Formats: sequence, structure tokens, C-alpha cells
Amino acid sequence: MSQTSFWIDGGTVTSPKSFLAGATYCGIRTYTEDKLDLGILFSEALCTVAGTFTQNKIKSPSVLLDQERVASKQAQAIVVNSGIANTSVGEQGMKDAIEMANVAAQHLGITPSLVLPSSTGLIGVELPMALISTGISNIVLSIEGGHALARAIRTTDTISKEAAISFNIGDHSYIIGGIAKGSGMVHPNMATMLSFLSTDAPVEPQFLQSCLSKVVDSTFNMISIDGDTSTNDSVIILANGAAGGEIISNKSPGATLFESALQEISIFLAKEIARDGEGADKLIEVKVEEAMTKEDARLAAKSIASSILVKSAVHGADPNWGRIIVALGYSGAELEENRIALYINEICIMEDGRPIPFFKDAVVATMNESEINIRVTLKMGDKSATAWGCEISEAYVTFNSAYST
Amino acid sequence: MSQTSFWIDGGTVTSPKSFLAGATYCGIRTYTEDKLDLGILFSEALCTVAGTFTQNKIKSPSVLLDQERVASKQAQAIVVNSGIANTSVGEQGMKDAIEMANVAAQHLGITPSLVLPSSTGLIGVELPMALISTGISNIVLSIEGGHALARAIRTTDTISKEAAISFNIGDHSYIIGGIAKGSGMVHPNMATMLSFLSTDAPVEPQFLQSCLSKVVDSTFNMISIDGDTSTNDSVIILANGAAGGEIISNKSPGATLFESALQEISIFLAKEIARDGEGADKLIEVKVEEAMTKEDARLAAKSIASSILVKSAVHGADPNWGRIIVALGYSGAELEENRIALYINEICIMEDGRPIPFFKDAVVATMNESEINIRVTLKMGDKSATAWGCEISEAYVTFNSAYST
Repeated sequence: MSQTSFWIDGGTVTSPKSFLAGATYCGIRTYTEDKLDLGILFSEALCTVAGTFTQNKIKSPSVLLDQERVASKQAQAIVVNSGIANTSVGEQGMKDAIEMANVAAQHLGITPSLVLPSSTGLIGVELPMALISTGISNIVLSIEGGHALARAIRTTDTISKEAAISFNIGDHSYIIGGIAKGSGMVHPNMATMLSFLSTDAPVEPQFLQSCLSKVVDSTFNMISIDGDTSTNDSVIILANGAAGGEIISNKSPGATLFESALQEISIFLAKEIARDGEGADKLIEVKVEEAMTKEDARLAAKSIASSILVKSAVHGADPNWGRIIVALGYSGAELEENRIALYINEICIMEDGRPIPFFKDAVVATMNESEINIRVTLKMGDKSATAWGCEISEAYVTFNSAYST
Repeated sequence: MSQTSFWIDGGTVTSPKSFLAGATYCGIRTYTEDKLDLGILFSEALCTVAGTFTQNKIKSPSVLLDQERVASKQAQAIVVNSGIANTSVGEQGMKDAIEMANVAAQHLGITPSLVLPSSTGLIGVELPMALISTGISNIVLSIEGGHALARAIRTTDTISKEAAISFNIGDHSYIIGGIAKGSGMVHPNMATMLSFLSTDAPVEPQFLQSCLSKVVDSTFNMISIDGDTSTNDSVIILANGAAGGEIISNKSPGATLFESALQEISIFLAKEIARDGEGADKLIEVKVEEAMTKEDARLAAKSIASSILVKSAVHGADPNWGRIIVALGYSGAELEENRIALYINEICIMEDGRPIPFFKDAVVATMNESEINIRVTLKMGDKSATAWGCEISEAYVTFNSAYST
């Protein structure tokens, strides 16, 4: 973390000024004592909004509606349910997305077009609108409500993912808060990735969108759990300007500070998602350096982090680097075999495209850590990229990962 | 099967006239009583040869040497070992590939450049050339030897994959034989796919190559076990013309008959590989129809057959069609959601992009069969494609696949 920003203890999406949230159990998901399945994020002031959404050609009507509303650059609230995705249900899907926003708008006393609906869960099932309407009217908003909202968007996530980061521009102190939910391969039909971010900084809308798109590309878009892109994936940021100061735009002196803080909190949330994937315990970080182009670096890093064979090897603490080389080879990145160097937790495994003798026990020992770092140097240029994934655990891999050790 | 061709009982790569094969245990792999790890396929007459090889940018030197030798259009033998891939071992790799072919050529009494070496197994380990040389000199060739060769190329395969098909062109009767090995995700560092085909038909070299490339594209290239493309994948066909008759070329009346027979045996071997993947019991066949382009149909079929989430659902006999729709949506194929129809084992699950009521127990019952057919109609055009995959079994999926039922 840079010296100009710091993490807020117990920070969440309601840590920035004038953001409130709340959640309730409305009955979509199986009841357990601490289960929540419906929530609202609300700003007391009108916000600038930006969003990035799934590239899947089949999208939830909730996503389509949000894309339309985000294009207006203004929003004030997000209403979200877990348990049902509101996808592939025909025309009823758009009606329900609009109705869900309308009910929330009435509860909040704002214009319906300022509310962004979001859903995650089973595909092909209609939203139970009576339960949702009743549920929304029961939601009580508070400045502590971000924690409840972080719980309400969880599906198979084993932990809540939330954080807030503080940074200064001149004399003004700003906060960016955020929550996220991930996709666990163990329950993959609820595999949507959602993240809702908030800030009390005043941000010019075009800059907010370009900054978010850039940051998402190097954070949330660089994690891989099971290779599937859901119909509902969304990252939305609301900026209400409640902390005052000059509007931050592309040309502002504070633009870089804002982008850095957004990058830091997005990396944190993205890594939390990767770490919590598939019931896994180990996070894999893959850094590809000295690639010819940025795209080459991205392709190579994602290919390695996505390889089921690499994930299996990491689970078994098996320094089976051949699998990393295979994934690198089919990534599409430009490379020359005899230039490649490979490091696992900074122990050099391969140099000039040839394995070098390494003390296997040392590598195995370091691979038992909870974070495994794979670093590949291509010696083709000066571009780099980082991707994150997680091990594959569970019994089927036990056999798999025990193979070459 | 068409009326003009029929399967040969107990057929293998030595079923076509004047092909011999043999295999031995040379000590590369762990010894078990019936284990073989080194073998030769030999034609008594000079052959026309064609081949298709891995697209991975990192290739085994054995593959590079074969690509060079196949370009000459002539070959007479294949020498192959399992256990070590001869990949990522620096300059020694090409020396060993050349030496392995030289030793085999001496044993067979032919020119070294007519021998194609092939390896499958661990990456980053040098071939034990003393063992291989001694092993080659112990290989005894016979017309029954195809079965032993099929065993020798197996790595984690649980069964041998071999077949032979007979067909007539005019008064001449021809045979195409073949063997294959697949890639099981349970032992993925030996995940190379190899297939060696033979025929006693006389085939013009350019036609043999174009025909093989076309057939491989719709068969071996349409199976997905774990999404990884190995450094050693190869399909090679030798045509020795021993059954006589006119040379078959692009313009021959028999061209279509030859291509059909090659297609049939390749589909059979490809499906055997898919069925034997990952220790799975169920084969998944995905047919995408009425796509706008052939490429759209291929993308969509492969995306569905490759989805870990679809494979998990099939394992659990869970008619969780939302996962199929998700994989279709991110495949890149052109589609309109409200035109899509989906059938599981010919039971209609979705029409016009909306789920239709189906009797879940009936679908679950049919999903317990050993072959699961998924058929998607896009209603965008008239192109179609078929892909094959297999379920993911093992304990981790039990939880996963039990989710929505």
C-alpha cells in the first residue's frame, strides 16, 4: 500500500460518507439463523455511477436494465437478491427487474430510474416478487448496514468480502468502500461474481467509467475459479461526492491517487474471491513478466492461473512445472522456449527453457503455504500482468496431484 | 455406419495388409506384469504419410522432427514410447528424437528419415536412451502386434483404444486401422493424445493430408477432457497401397468413400478417448444445430462439452440446464436467446429461450445412462457440429452435482 492510503479497520461499502445499507431474509434461500438474501445500498445524495458487466451473450434482464441505467451516469441505490438469478425466464425477467427497482425506489422515496436491481443464483427460475416486495419494505438502512449487505449477496461464499480504503487528495480525505461475492466451483450454478463499490469522492462520470473499466481489467477480470463467465457478473461503483472537494476528472492532479486506491481495493476483493473459490485454501498468484505485449502477458498469466492441472498440482504441493509450461504454451502468448524462466515461490525451477536442478523438498515445503506465487519471465519485451486463481481441492484431486511426487 | 463399410472384429492398426507391429517393456514406466512402454508400427512397403500435430507453442522435439519428415510425404514406421514426453529438455531432446528413429531404422533395415518417433509422458525428463535402444532391439513384429502397440502407448488410459474398418471402392476392398491413447484428467501430466492410423488403400499424398486435417477437425479436435492441449498431441496416418487399385485422390470416385471410412474410425477412437477421460463412466455428446456458421456451431458445441459445470451436472444426473445456457452464452457463437431450444436425451427442456415444464424424474432417469446427448438448436442458420466430453466424477463433484436436485 502506498503511503498516501490506508485500510480502514472493519471497513465496508458504507464506510464512505452518506452511504447506508441494510438487508433482510425474504425467503428465497433455505433459512438458516444468520442467512440474509435481499439487501439495499443507498446514498443520501445523488451519485455518479459507472459499471462493467458480463460478456456472456445471454444476460440477466437485471444486467440489461443496469447497463441502460448506468449509461445515464446517475444512480442512488442498488437493490440485490441472492438465490435466484432472474435469467432465462422470458419476458417476465425484465418486468420483474423493473418492479424490483420500483418497489425499492418507493421504499427509499427516490425516482425508480435511480435504482439498479441485481440478482445472483439459479437460472431459469422466476423471482418470487411477493416475497421480494415484502422483504424490501422490511429493510432498515444504517451506516453499519454494509456488513449485512455483504452477507446478503453471498451464495456459496464461505466468508464475507468487504473492505474500505482511505486516501487524501490535497486537504480532502476520501474513502472507497466495497463488497463482493465470488463463484465457488463447488456450487457453480450460483457462480456469479458481483462487486458493489462506493466512494464519497466527487468523480466526473466519464473518468469514473474509464477508471473502473481499466481497474476491473487488471483485477476482477484476472481471477479464474472455473473458467465460466456467468450471465449476471457485475461491478458497479457509486460516487456521491459527500466528502467535498474539487471534481476528480481525467486531468485532475488527484486522478492517479483515486485510481490507485480503486485498484488497491479491487485487488483485495478479487484476491478474496479467488481465495474463497471452490472451497479452496490456497491462493495462486501468477505473474508473467517481460512479455512482448500487455495482451501476451495477460493471456499467459490467465492461462496458467486457469489451468485445472496447475491448480491440482498446487493442491498437492507438487512442483510439477511441466503443467505450467503446457498452459503457457497454449495461452497464445508470443514466446521462445529457450528464453523462458520459471519461479515457484521465488525458487528458480527453469531457466533458458530448461529445467535446472532444484531441491524438491524445499519447493514442496514452500508450496504448502497458503499463497503460492508462480512467476514466469518470457524475455520478449517489458510488459507484465498478474492473475489469480485457487487450488482445486477435494478427493478427486488427491489421486491426481499425488502423481509425480 | 454406411452400408458400404463395416467394422472388423478385433480390428487394430495392423489389420490393413502388410502392416506389422510389436511392443516391449523397456523400463521407462513402473513395471507391472502386462505393462508395455515402447513399440513400433511398420509397413512392409513404403507409405504415403500425413499428420496433424499440437497447436501448443511449446512442442516436443519429436513432434518437430515428425512435422519435418511428414512434409516429405513418405514414411514407413512409427516408433513410440510412453512414460516420458521428451519435452522441455533443451537441445538433448532433438538429439534423442533423431537417435530413437535411427535405432529403430537400423532394427527395421530402412532409411532413418522414414521413421517417425513419438513420445508421451512426463515433461522435463530426458529419454533414457540406453533403455530405449535395448528395448527397440527386443521388439518382435507381427500382424497381431497392433494390440500390443495399443497397450504400449497407454499412459493413464484404462482401456486400449483400437479398431479397423473395411470399405470397398469398386472391386477393391480396403481397410483403415487405428489405435489411440487419451488424456485422463486424473493423471494429467501424461495428458497427450496420440492416434496412429494405417490403411492399405493407395492414397495420393495431398489428398491424404487434406482429408486427415478435415477429419481430425471434426473428431479428435472436438473432444474435451480437461481443456489442456499437450506439447505432444499427434495424429499420423500411413497409407501403403498394399491392397492395390487406382490411386485415390481428390477427384477419384472413391474419395468420398475413403473420407467417410476415415471419419467413422476417427469418431470411434475420439469417442473412446472422451469416454475414458478422467476415470469417467459417462460420455457426453453435444450437438449444436442450425447455427449461422460452421465455426459458431463448433464453438458452441465445444464450449458446452468443455464446461466443468456441465460435466458435473451430468455426473450427478442433474438436469441443471442453466449451466448449458451459460456455456452457450460465453462460447462466442452468434445467438438470440429467444430462439434457443435445448434437448437432453431428446427430452425438450427449453424452447424459444424459455424453460418448458418437464418431468424432472424422467430426465434424471435418462441422465443415468452411460451416454448423455445434449442437443441445442440455435435457429440462426443451417450449420451443425458435434463435440464429445465426459462427466467429472469423484467425491468433489458429489457435493457439486447434488446442488439443484
